[in-house]
Amino acid sequence: MPNTFGTLFTLTTFGESHGPGVGCVIDGCPAGLAMDMDFVQSELDRRRPGQSRLTTQRKESDKVQVLSGIYEGVTTGAPIALFIANEDARTSDYSHIAQAFRPSHADYTYQAKYGIRDYRGGGRSSARETASWVAAGAIAKLLLKTQGIDVHAYVSQVGTILTSLPYTELDLSLTESTPVRCPDPDTAAQMIALIEEVRKAGDTIGGVVTGVITGCPPGLGEPIFDKLHASLGQAMLSINACKGFEYGSGFSGVAMRGSAHNDAFFREGDVIKTRTNHSGGIQGGISNGMDIYFRCAFKPVATIVAPQESVNEAGESVTVTGKGRHDPCVVPRAVPVVEAMAALVLADFVLQKNAARI
Amino acid sequence: MPNTFGTLFTLTTFGESHGPGVGCVIDGCPAGLAMDMDFVQSELDRRRPGQSRLTTQRKESDKVQVLSGIYEGVTTGAPIALFIANEDARTSDYSHIAQAFRPSHADYTYQAKYGIRDYRGGGRSSARETASWVAAGAIAKLLLKTQGIDVHAYVSQVGTILTSLPYTELDLSLTESTPVRCPDPDTAAQMIALIEEVRKAGDTIGGVVTGVITGCPPGLGEPIFDKLHASLGQAMLSINACKGFEYGSGFSGVAMRGSAHNDAFFREGDVIKTRTNHSGGIQGGISNGMDIYFRCAFKPVATIVAPQESVNEAGESVTVTGKGRHDPCVVPRAVPVVEAMAALVLADFVLQKNAARI
Amino acid sequence: MPNTFGTLFTLTTFGESHGPGVGCVIDGCPAGLAMDMDFVQSELDRRRPGQSRLTTQRKESDKVQVLSGIYEGVTTGAPIALFIANEDARTSDYSHIAQAFRPSHADYTYQAKYGIRDYRGGGRSSARETASWVAAGAIAKLLLKTQGIDVHAYVSQVGTILTSLPYTELDLSLTESTPVRCPDPDTAAQMIALIEEVRKAGDTIGGVVTGVITGCPPGLGEPIFDKLHASLGQAMLSINACKGFEYGSGFSGVAMRGSAHNDAFFREGDVIKTRTNHSGGIQGGISNGMDIYFRCAFKPVATIVAPQESVNEAGESVTVTGKGRHDPCVVPRAVPVVEAMAALVLADFVLQKNAARI
Amino acid sequence: MPNTFGTLFTLTTFGESHGPGVGCVIDGCPAGLAMDMDFVQSELDRRRPGQSRLTTQRKESDKVQVLSGIYEGVTTGAPIALFIANEDARTSDYSHIAQAFRPSHADYTYQAKYGIRDYRGGGRSSARETASWVAAGAIAKLLLKTQGIDVHAYVSQVGTILTSLPYTELDLSLTESTPVRCPDPDTAAQMIALIEEVRKAGDTIGGVVTGVITGCPPGLGEPIFDKLHASLGQAMLSINACKGFEYGSGFSGVAMRGSAHNDAFFREGDVIKTRTNHSGGIQGGISNGMDIYFRCAFKPVATIVAPQESVNEAGESVTVTGKGRHDPCVVPRAVPVVEAMAALVLADFVLQKNAARI
Repeated sequence: MPNTFGTLFTLTTFGESHGPGVGCVIDGCPAGLAMDMDFVQSELDRRRPGQSRLTTQRKESDKVQVLSGIYEGVTTGAPIALFIANEDARTSDYSHIAQAFRPSHADYTYQAKYGIRDYRGGGRSSARETASWVAAGAIAKLLLKTQGIDVHAYVSQVGTILTSLPYTELDLSLTESTPVRCPDPDTAAQMIALIEEVRKAGDTIGGVVTGVITGCPPGLGEPIFDKLHASLGQAMLSINACKGFEYGSGFSGVAMRGSAHNDAFFREGDVIKTRTNHSGGIQGGISNGMDIYFRCAFKPVATIVAPQESVNEAGESVTVTGKGRHDPCVVPRAVPVVEAMAALVLADFVLQKNAARI
Repeated sequence: MPNTFGTLFTLTTFGESHGPGVGCVIDGCPAGLAMDMDFVQSELDRRRPGQSRLTTQRKESDKVQVLSGIYEGVTTGAPIALFIANEDARTSDYSHIAQAFRPSHADYTYQAKYGIRDYRGGGRSSARETASWVAAGAIAKLLLKTQGIDVHAYVSQVGTILTSLPYTELDLSLTESTPVRCPDPDTAAQMIALIEEVRKAGDTIGGVVTGVITGCPPGLGEPIFDKLHASLGQAMLSINACKGFEYGSGFSGVAMRGSAHNDAFFREGDVIKTRTNHSGGIQGGISNGMDIYFRCAFKPVATIVAPQESVNEAGESVTVTGKGRHDPCVVPRAVPVVEAMAALVLADFVLQKNAARI
Repeated sequence: MPNTFGTLFTLTTFGESHGPGVGCVIDGCPAGLAMDMDFVQSELDRRRPGQSRLTTQRKESDKVQVLSGIYEGVTTGAPIALFIANEDARTSDYSHIAQAFRPSHADYTYQAKYGIRDYRGGGRSSARETASWVAAGAIAKLLLKTQGIDVHAYVSQVGTILTSLPYTELDLSLTESTPVRCPDPDTAAQMIALIEEVRKAGDTIGGVVTGVITGCPPGLGEPIFDKLHASLGQAMLSINACKGFEYGSGFSGVAMRGSAHNDAFFREGDVIKTRTNHSGGIQGGISNGMDIYFRCAFKPVATIVAPQESVNEAGESVTVTGKGRHDPCVVPRAVPVVEAMAALVLADFVLQKNAARI
Repeated sequence: MPNTFGTLFTLTTFGESHGPGVGCVIDGCPAGLAMDMDFVQSELDRRRPGQSRLTTQRKESDKVQVLSGIYEGVTTGAPIALFIANEDARTSDYSHIAQAFRPSHADYTYQAKYGIRDYRGGGRSSARETASWVAAGAIAKLLLKTQGIDVHAYVSQVGTILTSLPYTELDLSLTESTPVRCPDPDTAAQMIALIEEVRKAGDTIGGVVTGVITGCPPGLGEPIFDKLHASLGQAMLSINACKGFEYGSGFSGVAMRGSAHNDAFFREGDVIKTRTNHSGGIQGGISNGMDIYFRCAFKPVATIVAPQESVNEAGESVTVTGKGRHDPCVVPRAVPVVEAMAALVLADFVLQKNAARI
């Protein structure tokens, strides 16, 4: 089921950028969970377009409608269906690509796979799809809160501008204080300036989102193919424009020796901890109780203003010029999406762990 | 099913490092595929321990037995069960960790998750598990060959020693010519020297394996949660000690602008190609017909000779000293595992694409 | 995923009897299939309430809305989301059961399972859920038509009144000619009279629906756990009030000897056929090219007018009296549901067979 | 995954009748379960061939080997792989069907589906496959015992000879006291005589197995597509030669009126019960705490001595004469298989219910 994510806490999505809307069915959410729909909406508001000059100017209120599964403010154990209508689709912006394939978009590959495509706004390949993910992720967050697990993400790099501080030295409560969602104020200011410069140039730029999960108990994750970090990796790499994922020491760990990389165990009160956390809170695919942290690389958005060489469906050479509203840099709006996908992964593993308790 | 990988071409594995052996069931392999068991064995031989001074000295012949699914040299459509007996398990090497948790191993997390663990040789968390993956991957490779798809991997970095050449400028046929499996001979020599040095010091070192898939037709992959690169990412992050995955421009792409990163389309004969390949052969989660390439980060092996601080099951402070045979650097033996997992991912998507052809 | 049916052609449903509506997501439908939404609606019209005096008087237009996956009248390969609004929910009819458990309904078991229930109209346990199944089944039928496969069902028994003719001696085109959907006119008249009598008595009665699948090629079905008839069985037993399933000779075959039961093979032109068809078109779980036929037993509807002994949530003795509109006999409206579920099973196996063609 | 059964407690099987053996991987069994392998073997002994004159004379010891997942007599949470070697395969008995299709066997459909078949002993379509099911079911039974759930089956009909007593009036402890496994001694004697008569005539006869599950708590089962009875139905219909399934009132319920069929609720101590149990312990797909009971129809075995009309792979008319050892009546040996499949279904739902407890 290619439009479904998860094993026990599952998300099935549908919708296109310029159709009636996007939506999802969340199956497996336990009954009896108080559903704070204001919180769900607030998460959608963090992702929705038009928040600031840094993001696309498409105007969508992204109001979520509950179609099923919640009764008198509480989950019933039935599937939860959510729907978010499209309001500001300007299909005319896309008529120029009805035939042509935009470079580094999914136009060509959808045509190759399906022999047909809904080109309007990118159809199903649009990042508008992630609105459903954020709504479902908000419900997963509510479940995780009952377990003491908290999920946080922030922008740690835009282009070559990055914060030199590890997450442990940042005040993560500052993430939402700037439109770029970097909790290091000085770096945030430089990032914003860079995005503005890129936007004015009609260009785009990539970035990195760092995720941090706190309060995760030991024992979550499955140790072979559904390793906690492998599931996180798949989740993050599912996000539009994500090109890489690393956790703990990640790529920087390859240059280390085992004697420096190993995390010594010690006991603090009743809790077993590690002196360092190069493991990123996961050992053998299973959480060890330390913070889980990871980084996701996002490429520059493919829609740019300058004319580009391409071909059309007939295979003829054409020039494609950027139209359609788009983000100059995707990472500020990717932050709630990263959080949502991480929350879905963890909620699933919480239920899987429960299942095996006899 | 945490011990199963794949949707239509599926691998289910079992076994522990010091039990009777490791094995697997491959379900969904099409009937009528000629099964070259010499090839399957040769792939296992690439992974097996004791190949050179660079790898663990555990001696295992890793002879694969076919238990079902192949009749007169051809697949029947029935599940293919394979078994690889353990021969050189030295359980006595591990008695010192019956109670203690080895730092950065899975001892503690298995105990936390299951309340019990087969500590002998790491039990199911041992990389011996990957023997099954390689056997199954070899069968997937035979399927892919009928589709013109080839999977290759090589070591591109050990510690800080890396080849500066992209895969397009390397002669990949040289990969097997050195025990370190780096097709750049000068770099390979330096890598070997480094691994020798590390081994003599009783230490370990990390590295990077690069994967390359050629001959992949456009249209493989599912565009939302089962994106081709997200499935590859999950597959690679499932491999023991893998800490990061990137494809195409990966983490380096975050510093690029869209105008430089976009891959222009052009036509060559009947084939649509891109001028550059920052997309890594995948757009919108679906293959575009260009080469697919990716990189996997591996941490240094956790087993080292030096004494390390830890705790035991009772939570008491203990010192753990390395015993048990192990690899000073995992990447040379990870090469066939990376290829196997990539082959499994692609074989699955080939079947998924077939399914939708009406 | 308990609200999902199928492996490759999948149906995920949501909705409650008295919520905003019911709906579904169909994932895996191949791209490029012409979508005749008038046909889909006509199938829903066969199932909707208020068709005749034989069925519940709840008035629902059951107009289906397409939320995604169809572009310019053709499937795109994206998930197809459908929604059917609830229009005539009379929640006040159900206030008497807010606390009490109606005998032989799902009130008590939902409460036991979830600790909460949306009692209004039976919530998610209402047969209104099957509207989604019929809509999805209609799409599956359109897919099957491209393969020459046709699915038909009819009422063969109501109470003790049954047609003595096998399906091969009935004119199945007459099924829709009476409100009871029995293609044997004399028997139909007796069935209608019986249902009228039962309805006037404030009581209900059971019945049998027979299904017939023609044009199914040999080779559909998976031979171990996903046998074609086992999947059909699960599908039929999923339908509200279904208590039994048999195919081919079914329960009557237990009294036969092998020499009488075996179906001799012979060749007619290029086609291999069997002289008899006690196998019901399925051997070893796989279709053999002969007609597939099966029977589904439906119990009498649980809602009756007479007062009944029961308990409430507090465990106190109460008397429950029937309110709420309901069917005196479920089988006439179950006919399109049986067809829909059979179509979903077959569409799935068509895709599964395709997947394995290399 | 067509060779896998279950969602959380899963069984994946492999093997052919005349290959090295049959086996399985059980994934999802909770860690810490004491594994009584003598019990597992005793269950296999109930199913194995050669027990009495009523069954096939193939001699197999069916000794189960544990390949993984059990350490010091306790499950570790790792997959449990079991293997049962084939010892008495007489492939020469089957050379006559290398080309010809035996009537009402799976020879033709396997050939149609796969284009190839391992004809020896029926290959994978042999009921020898069910040895794995019984072994896995025994492990499921051990899990269920910790929950107070007990699974029992017995032969209630052979040909036209049936016990007139409901299960509630039988002493189920007598089931194993006769080779036909009917706990009604007089009826058992008649059944045995009939099977003997049929066997001497070179013929075969069908029968019915009744299943009874006691101690099942309310709340097991999923209410839409994975209804408890629908999963039981699929499980039973997966058993070789099973042609029908009914639970509770089943097919006999269709002739009843709702006023007679409904099961009134009452309270006995702290337990809510029903006065009658036409529901068969399941309402809305979920257990209600009463006994679950069901009936499975088995057709006569297809292998008979008399010559039969058939065709060969070339489509030519041939006569097939019965060879190969086989059972004159399958139901006595089907009893442990029915129990095993029921146990697998219930174990799965126990885990699913656990998963949702937050």
